[in-house]
Amino acid sequence: MWQLDNKQPIYVQIYEQIKLMILEKKYEENQKLPSKRALADSLKVSPMTVDVAYQQLMAEGYIYSKPKSGYYVEMDLDTFIPVKTVSIQDIDMKKPVKTYPYAFKTNVVDTALFPYATWSKLTRTVLLDYQKALLNESDPQGLYELRLEIAKYLDIHRGISIDPSQIIIGSGSTSLMTLLVELLGRDKHFAIENPSYQKNHQLYKGQNVALSLIGLDGSGMDIRELNRKNIDVIHITPSHQFPTGVVMPISRRIELLNWANQTDRYIIEDDYDSEFRYSGKPIPALTGLNQDKIIYMNTFTKTLAPSFRMNYMVLPKDLLKHYRNHLTHHSCTVPLLDQYVLYLFMKQGSFDRHINKMKKRYKQKVDLITDILSLYPFIKIKHFDAGLHGIIEVKTKKMPDCMKAFEMAGIDIKSMDDFYLDYPRKSVELVLGYAGIPIESLEKNIKMLAETIKKHCS
Amino acid sequence: MWQLDNKQPIYVQIYEQIKLMILEKKYEENQKLPSKRALADSLKVSPMTVDVAYQQLMAEGYIYSKPKSGYYVEMDLDTFIPVKTVSIQDIDMKKPVKTYPYAFKTNVVDTALFPYATWSKLTRTVLLDYQKALLNESDPQGLYELRLEIAKYLDIHRGISIDPSQIIIGSGSTSLMTLLVELLGRDKHFAIENPSYQKNHQLYKGQNVALSLIGLDGSGMDIRELNRKNIDVIHITPSHQFPTGVVMPISRRIELLNWANQTDRYIIEDDYDSEFRYSGKPIPALTGLNQDKIIYMNTFTKTLAPSFRMNYMVLPKDLLKHYRNHLTHHSCTVPLLDQYVLYLFMKQGSFDRHINKMKKRYKQKVDLITDILSLYPFIKIKHFDAGLHGIIEVKTKKMPDCMKAFEMAGIDIKSMDDFYLDYPRKSVELVLGYAGIPIESLEKNIKMLAETIKKHCS
Repeated sequence: MWQLDNKQPIYVQIYEQIKLMILEKKYEENQKLPSKRALADSLKVSPMTVDVAYQQLMAEGYIYSKPKSGYYVEMDLDTFIPVKTVSIQDIDMKKPVKTYPYAFKTNVVDTALFPYATWSKLTRTVLLDYQKALLNESDPQGLYELRLEIAKYLDIHRGISIDPSQIIIGSGSTSLMTLLVELLGRDKHFAIENPSYQKNHQLYKGQNVALSLIGLDGSGMDIRELNRKNIDVIHITPSHQFPTGVVMPISRRIELLNWANQTDRYIIEDDYDSEFRYSGKPIPALTGLNQDKIIYMNTFTKTLAPSFRMNYMVLPKDLLKHYRNHLTHHSCTVPLLDQYVLYLFMKQGSFDRHINKMKKRYKQKVDLITDILSLYPFIKIKHFDAGLHGIIEVKTKKMPDCMKAFEMAGIDIKSMDDFYLDYPRKSVELVLGYAGIPIESLEKNIKMLAETIKKHCS
Repeated sequence: MWQLDNKQPIYVQIYEQIKLMILEKKYEENQKLPSKRALADSLKVSPMTVDVAYQQLMAEGYIYSKPKSGYYVEMDLDTFIPVKTVSIQDIDMKKPVKTYPYAFKTNVVDTALFPYATWSKLTRTVLLDYQKALLNESDPQGLYELRLEIAKYLDIHRGISIDPSQIIIGSGSTSLMTLLVELLGRDKHFAIENPSYQKNHQLYKGQNVALSLIGLDGSGMDIRELNRKNIDVIHITPSHQFPTGVVMPISRRIELLNWANQTDRYIIEDDYDSEFRYSGKPIPALTGLNQDKIIYMNTFTKTLAPSFRMNYMVLPKDLLKHYRNHLTHHSCTVPLLDQYVLYLFMKQGSFDRHINKMKKRYKQKVDLITDILSLYPFIKIKHFDAGLHGIIEVKTKKMPDCMKAFEMAGIDIKSMDDFYLDYPRKSVELVLGYAGIPIESLEKNIKMLAETIKKHCS
């Protein structure tokens, strides 16, 4: 019965073979095993080797020992009923992702100018200078030093003056929004803009909370529609509505703040790309007007890159109090190493410099795009003055043909209709993300798009 | 009325001052603003500067322009009702954390042997060699190359043979468990072990799902109690129950697998510290016996450090299918840079070497602890053969006095009672975490603990 080779330690082979025989009921319950010496002699191994195998079988509960008697097979071992196995082939495996030669995506950034060398140098510094601090459990809200830098940044660039203790750092908006739903309460009625970022819709749905879609008028979330429904929390993008690009005017901001000025009503201000405005200064955050009713959220996804997985939110003080008392068991989801590196990156001014560099690059791209598209009279350019995408309106009555033509030509671009969360509106607008297209090939991409529109849509 | 200084650009000051007057209703609705030239002349600035300020006010909706007439204050601006402000002092701010000279914590690791230089070198390599791949959005399940290394590791060390496509990487168990609750369904009835890791209890509670606590007998989760309740999903730690240290014998494993062998029942196997066993080989994972009913979870928290925030789970194939069809909008929460570094760290064998080094170090600690404690006849040593903590049982009838004496002596150690999630059991067991105590000061710590027990508990 014994088949020993030299691929594994002998004790493991003895252990495995006895284990299998017990599981397959080839040994009876309470059957006595050969003594360690007898088995060792017959296998020509040391009794020590057999002992290690028997100890392992004991630890896992396959056998038991009787003092001065020997080792016995465990009794009361249920028959093990194997479950039918699903084959990996049966699964609808990852759909092959079609790659398009002309891709106008909105969830990417320009990666050409990323300061790899600086990031590498700072990582080395952190691994040398912060060794002990680096490896133990961190503050659930994130590294204090990084929160201090973020607070300074918000004060200078977003007109928001807060205490670093109000900031919670998290890896991606999902982590933070999941925490926020728990903090605000699963009994709350949430509302998001329509059209909107689809992932936010899926996220609230996945949290199983009451969710309404509120349409937009020219100024942002429709206040009359909001007032008709019994909403507790709204999630909005006032500085640069996603995807329409509309800036919420001060009149609507005041209306929404006055709406929120009721017990237990809150506004989530999603300030996802406000760093990038190409004329004048950035639109001030809504949170600057009233910190007690607004949860401010921002991300390093657009300023650094999506793969950095660093986001943060600023809690109003009453929510902070509730968080401190009930939710600090949620550990911070961002590795401390990355937090230290970003802290130094911000502290030494590299972050500000990087944003300025990126702003210049995106401005170049916007100028190039608008220059080219202005030559096509049936294309109207809208909201290219901020963020990493713009809207183009096509004078056409054949939008479905137009979308088919894009697909045929290898152009990946979304229609505004793709962002309506209930039903499409027969929109003639396209959402043009340009950040991910290298500046060298932008002209070719834009011309391809415009010529396809010219040929198939007008 | 104009107060200009040189602390900010002039256009920002003009913009800020007009904005404030509009908000404070010092301008009337529809009031005409001075022409750009008139204002520029009176302020002795260029008309261009005034134009930038007016454009910014327009963009934010404070003013509007009438062609060939000029700029006017926006009408219909609601009165802005400021909300009463909570002072940051009113908040129950972070409680000052008491530090203990003798701390037997279970959520820390030994940081003395971490390969900082290797990690730093690999980070540099990744930032040089994977630049483009590094910055764009990653696979929602995590880097494929890293999942391949994890699959190899599970095959060799945990007896689990799976496809890398079944693995999902996440930052911390919270992210993964939150996703898992959504995947399994919020209508499911979950059960956890009692006593257990408190954070898991808080996590399921926060997800608002039905949750039962199931007591342990000598073999792990009590199967009779489980059968009496209508449970769908159990979360267990079979290789090394936390905190009792019990290894689940094969008999109970088979009973639980047979329990799970029903439609829609699942077992979550939390294999949090199985890498560390100091005699024989690691206890095989339950998942090795049946992959179709078990969600396997593991973490790099214990093998690297808590601050790395890298965990993973292995989905059974039917759950993987459901995940692929419905939940891939959850982006991976771990930064891609960290995933690439860990991938190389595993691939080049550094991870295996690090575990072996740590195992030796922890074995030294265990030997030292058991040597010292065996000199104290009223202390019984239990379950120090695996993981990063052990149990000591104190022969005493004065446990509350004992706990007070620890506090007085500056000893931070938890009683088993601290891990019971319903009510304390008047346990005489202490949970002794030793990983975080440097080897140089371990003897002093253990002697202090034993002497305090000798003086106050026996």
